[in-house]
Amino acid sequence: MSINQLGIVKRNIVRADKSAVEKLARFGVATVHEAMGRVGLMKTYMRPIYAGAHACGTAVTVLMHPGDNWMMHVVAEQIQPGDVVVAAVTSECTDGFFGDLLATSFRARGAKGLIIDGGVRDVKDLTAMEFPVFSKAISAKGTIKATLGSVNVPVVCAGVLVNPGDVVLADADGVVVVPAAIAQQVADAAEKRESLEGEKRAKLAAGVLGLDMYKMREPLEKAGLKYID
Amino acid sequence: MSINQLGIVKRNIVRADKSAVEKLARFGVATVHEAMGRVGLMKTYMRPIYAGAHACGTAVTVLMHPGDNWMMHVVAEQIQPGDVVVAAVTSECTDGFFGDLLATSFRARGAKGLIIDGGVRDVKDLTAMEFPVFSKAISAKGTIKATLGSVNVPVVCAGVLVNPGDVVLADADGVVVVPAAIAQQVADAAEKRESLEGEKRAKLAAGVLGLDMYKMREPLEKAGLKYID
Amino acid sequence: MSINQLGIVKRNIVRADKSAVEKLARFGVATVHEAMGRVGLMKTYMRPIYAGAHACGTAVTVLMHPGDNWMMHVVAEQIQPGDVVVAAVTSECTDGFFGDLLATSFRARGAKGLIIDGGVRDVKDLTAMEFPVFSKAISAKGTIKATLGSVNVPVVCAGVLVNPGDVVLADADGVVVVPAAIAQQVADAAEKRESLEGEKRAKLAAGVLGLDMYKMREPLEKAGLKYID
Amino acid sequence: MSINQLGIVKRNIVRADKSAVEKLARFGVATVHEAMGRVGLMKTYMRPIYAGAHACGTAVTVLMHPGDNWMMHVVAEQIQPGDVVVAAVTSECTDGFFGDLLATSFRARGAKGLIIDGGVRDVKDLTAMEFPVFSKAISAKGTIKATLGSVNVPVVCAGVLVNPGDVVLADADGVVVVPAAIAQQVADAAEKRESLEGEKRAKLAAGVLGLDMYKMREPLEKAGLKYID
Amino acid sequence: MSINQLGIVKRNIVRADKSAVEKLARFGVATVHEAMGRVGLMKTYMRPIYAGAHACGTAVTVLMHPGDNWMMHVVAEQIQPGDVVVAAVTSECTDGFFGDLLATSFRARGAKGLIIDGGVRDVKDLTAMEFPVFSKAISAKGTIKATLGSVNVPVVCAGVLVNPGDVVLADADGVVVVPAAIAQQVADAAEKRESLEGEKRAKLAAGVLGLDMYKMREPLEKAGLKYID
Amino acid sequence: MSINQLGIVKRNIVRADKSAVEKLARFGVATVHEAMGRVGLMKTYMRPIYAGAHACGTAVTVLMHPGDNWMMHVVAEQIQPGDVVVAAVTSECTDGFFGDLLATSFRARGAKGLIIDGGVRDVKDLTAMEFPVFSKAISAKGTIKATLGSVNVPVVCAGVLVNPGDVVLADADGVVVVPAAIAQQVADAAEKRESLEGEKRAKLAAGVLGLDMYKMREPLEKAGLKYID
Repeated sequence: MSINQLGIVKRNIVRADKSAVEKLARFGVATVHEAMGRVGLMKTYMRPIYAGAHACGTAVTVLMHPGDNWMMHVVAEQIQPGDVVVAAVTSECTDGFFGDLLATSFRARGAKGLIIDGGVRDVKDLTAMEFPVFSKAISAKGTIKATLGSVNVPVVCAGVLVNPGDVVLADADGVVVVPAAIAQQVADAAEKRESLEGEKRAKLAAGVLGLDMYKMREPLEKAGLKYID
Repeated sequence: MSINQLGIVKRNIVRADKSAVEKLARFGVATVHEAMGRVGLMKTYMRPIYAGAHACGTAVTVLMHPGDNWMMHVVAEQIQPGDVVVAAVTSECTDGFFGDLLATSFRARGAKGLIIDGGVRDVKDLTAMEFPVFSKAISAKGTIKATLGSVNVPVVCAGVLVNPGDVVLADADGVVVVPAAIAQQVADAAEKRESLEGEKRAKLAAGVLGLDMYKMREPLEKAGLKYID
Repeated sequence: MSINQLGIVKRNIVRADKSAVEKLARFGVATVHEAMGRVGLMKTYMRPIYAGAHACGTAVTVLMHPGDNWMMHVVAEQIQPGDVVVAAVTSECTDGFFGDLLATSFRARGAKGLIIDGGVRDVKDLTAMEFPVFSKAISAKGTIKATLGSVNVPVVCAGVLVNPGDVVLADADGVVVVPAAIAQQVADAAEKRESLEGEKRAKLAAGVLGLDMYKMREPLEKAGLKYID
Repeated sequence: MSINQLGIVKRNIVRADKSAVEKLARFGVATVHEAMGRVGLMKTYMRPIYAGAHACGTAVTVLMHPGDNWMMHVVAEQIQPGDVVVAAVTSECTDGFFGDLLATSFRARGAKGLIIDGGVRDVKDLTAMEFPVFSKAISAKGTIKATLGSVNVPVVCAGVLVNPGDVVLADADGVVVVPAAIAQQVADAAEKRESLEGEKRAKLAAGVLGLDMYKMREPLEKAGLKYID
Repeated sequence: MSINQLGIVKRNIVRADKSAVEKLARFGVATVHEAMGRVGLMKTYMRPIYAGAHACGTAVTVLMHPGDNWMMHVVAEQIQPGDVVVAAVTSECTDGFFGDLLATSFRARGAKGLIIDGGVRDVKDLTAMEFPVFSKAISAKGTIKATLGSVNVPVVCAGVLVNPGDVVLADADGVVVVPAAIAQQVADAAEKRESLEGEKRAKLAAGVLGLDMYKMREPLEKAGLKYID
Repeated sequence: MSINQLGIVKRNIVRADKSAVEKLARFGVATVHEAMGRVGLMKTYMRPIYAGAHACGTAVTVLMHPGDNWMMHVVAEQIQPGDVVVAAVTSECTDGFFGDLLATSFRARGAKGLIIDGGVRDVKDLTAMEFPVFSKAISAKGTIKATLGSVNVPVVCAGVLVNPGDVVLADADGVVVVPAAIAQQVADAAEKRESLEGEKRAKLAAGVLGLDMYKMREPLEKAGLKYID
């Protein structure tokens, strides 16, 4: 399946291992992003449509043209419980590609949320439904249903390559994509990272400085830092 | 009254029919925008200053220069109960043209809210007052009172032409302007649209796909959509 | 200490008078900004990371390079109770320079908040901690610790010069910087301004127009304003 | 013809008086904008696609949907010699709605240029043809031909209302729209303004200060300006 | 090689077929983009640093961190004659990652140009050298050499996935990426497209309307277009 | 003189040493910025209004309010031969604060150029005059003359603190500010840097890699870089 191919729906995709997804869901986006080596984060313009929105699941992808959400109905059929829909558009567009009717349908299929490099609407209803959406824009402007895009092809969404089946994790800090092949390994690394943080937090709260806890004084001095009065 | 004319206050304007305004107020911006044929929506940078802000009323318009809010005091006198003030600026400016004192005055005159293609301040107070404002920016920077603009001339606000008396509707999805002449007709179309949605929502919630409900399978196939495994 | 000098930590800085800081903390940013003559406001892209965030204190400054937060640990040691950390970056960068561990450390030192012309992360935790942060962006992307910046040199943050020891006040309307030397005088002017507002508000609420209260009718007429029907 | 109505082509429009257009073409955008009282200027993101581009003519308007340039072919037929096509899009889109084939067709019909609140492509060819275009973006991305817009309805383009038949003037300083009804009057005012500038320029070049030439010293002193050494 | 992996240099990459690259170089970006089905275009903020810049070649990729261009020196060694360097950054940064010294080195290795989702400097020199660069920004701000990125891993640059060996084509209309596997096929499609354009251009220049040439009148009428007088 | 003070004109300022200015004028902005340690660069949105614009001189500063250029006439009188005017605005505004008449006056006083964190107009004339301007925007929109700002107070322009008398250097790579006190030292450092570049360029042109010339292979290996085939 090549990137951005048009007019295609791929039905059988390999989803990341369920246990890895469940484990990743326990961590924050910042922790997982660190555990991956600081790659895979979508651009910072991607924001939750309501405070507290959180989503984690396996990606089913959809590629649309500006102002046209026809493929949203096509992707709905490909959703399996635990999936997150990742929507890309072939050029920048803030129109409202998604609203409460589609959310009702997505939820009925078991979707855990929507990540869209475009706009959505019916934000009040989506909030009431607690259907998590992370988007570039909010816009009441609806779309037409006239041109083909694709479903479950690799897409670039908000600067990140997403392959169908990858794990997508989204919270107040942004949206991160974990390739399916390394999901378990990243989940383990995140767990390890998290376990170390509790101890650090306690020390810092007690007034220990990061300068000492991380033994930074010597490298800072070597780098030439000067203290003056 | 020509567009953007300066130094003018028009006292008598024809407001949209009250019953049409009241009916439109029952619907969301997305529904009304669809009912109008997807025109009349302000740019998506217009956002409510607090979650849940909602406004609907007849437009009284004000045109100001950047950094100068003198005309805000002039427009206050022209407000009638049920009006929404729509403020445009002759060039881009994010200064705070409006705060809690003006809001107090506007409310005393019966204003239902403010739509401004510029900045506002005293956001905490405005929120406490529950005075709905949709703006391009929030800025503590005050303005001077030195140059004339106009009141109740046609203005372009956030990309949309607003004539005094038009209906302005604003919620979480954005701001839409309904010309006074078609307010009743749009309200009826919105009502019709809304009444159809309940049934659709129930079907989608039950797992019926939009593909089938909207009979899209055949046109998609004709357009060349290919399913692969 | 010259502006933006690198590789320096200044330990002894002159902080604004405590009583002036406490007095300024009672007023809103808009009021203080007016009291200063409408200067000293940071750019409007600086936003609180949670609704209701509020901070007031004396500035300790930190200058960092894009993608590198090493100096955040250095500035922590220079914090005294009542300080607000003001962070500038040598070129635009939205990475997450700050998260809940640093916030724990800053709070342990007595910091009242963070103002950063860059990104932060762990927003959910920072919100739970009620640690006020005003930033340009939110980003899960972490940073490295490789290059020297400075602490307590004058910096330009979001368009405003901040000298160590200046008063920084931040609320829903933005962030304003009051030079230490005029803090008391600005606090007094703000108090005076505030005391006049209550009376005005009452009049406006009673329906008196600003046009009359501020005696604007004559100057408007002189400027050429025309009323038409 | 109401603003932004869809699915309509208006064939007979009243164009601004030819002599007024010709006179306006002799002046710069800045001069004409001043002569109109500083209104009617499109947003500053509208830029010429090549250095030195200049256009003046009567507006024929076209309204399109994002990613769809079908109506460009419809507007071509409505062009009369001396017209400038003004293209608006119902929501923000930077796709390339226009290229060298359409330019060839527009020129064959007598078009003087294109003003588009969207993207264009084939910039190298358009430059070689010296076909003046002022646009929001340049993009190789083509568009589809699937949805109806309108021709010769009033549109808002880059923040300005344009009625069919209005005069559009574009140069290095931007794009200004002169309503047909006041074209002659604005042209006369521009001429008067221009004639005064030569004399002023000579004085300023000789070292006379604007302070003295415009007699500003007294008002500045009254406003409170202090000179210090 | 997975996307965005850090600390890796891949030495052996499969470059697109030379004859396909040469053929693609004869066409414009708009033509090639159409020939690919309107996918593969970088975001429109990518602009040439001088008028007339043009580049075509096979991609060698480099991934860097914000403010750090160490890997630019690593990628230089991997350049083969006919390559275009495609540079991505792990988060948004406009610093000047590239200047005339690196350009001298790149050219000595046979590079045909640089595409960078970041900033460059020494623009005057690069222009004098006629070394084509397409970038997001111009900035005199230099970078450090402290952190590892990668060379010849797949990267996302300005919204498009680029695999090492893909064909990159850049001109006044933007930057398009053609996957190596379909380079010949796209080149052939572009050729076919181009050959049809000459005939069309002649017809349009003679005054034939696209409405008639493309037989659009009937579908427009069916879609409901109304002509009024 | 405190930062951003309003209603003040400072007549006697200490300008950077003439010989230092002359020496700095021989180098590019990128070289000088490096010589200063990578600080002092204005934001990258500051662009020349014509290709090839270049300016170097001592700063006279002016602070204005949005939409008001009254102080431009006041600063004109304070210009001495060799000065560059640096204009800041109290909040963001793209209006045209400056055009060919003011340029004529500035040139008559000996000004070397204008750096403005706002808009300018009459770009065609300014280009013909070869009067170098670096600005945030181009806009035909004129301004009023109603409110006081200041002349020769310290200002923040495009993110950089500028004190009257500092050296300002602008070319295709951007605008850099060199504090008067270190102008000579920076000029010397720039000269040294430049002299080293010729030799490096020759080596790189001969095919020597930066990897070897800068001895980067070992540190890269230590940092963990892996070469794979």
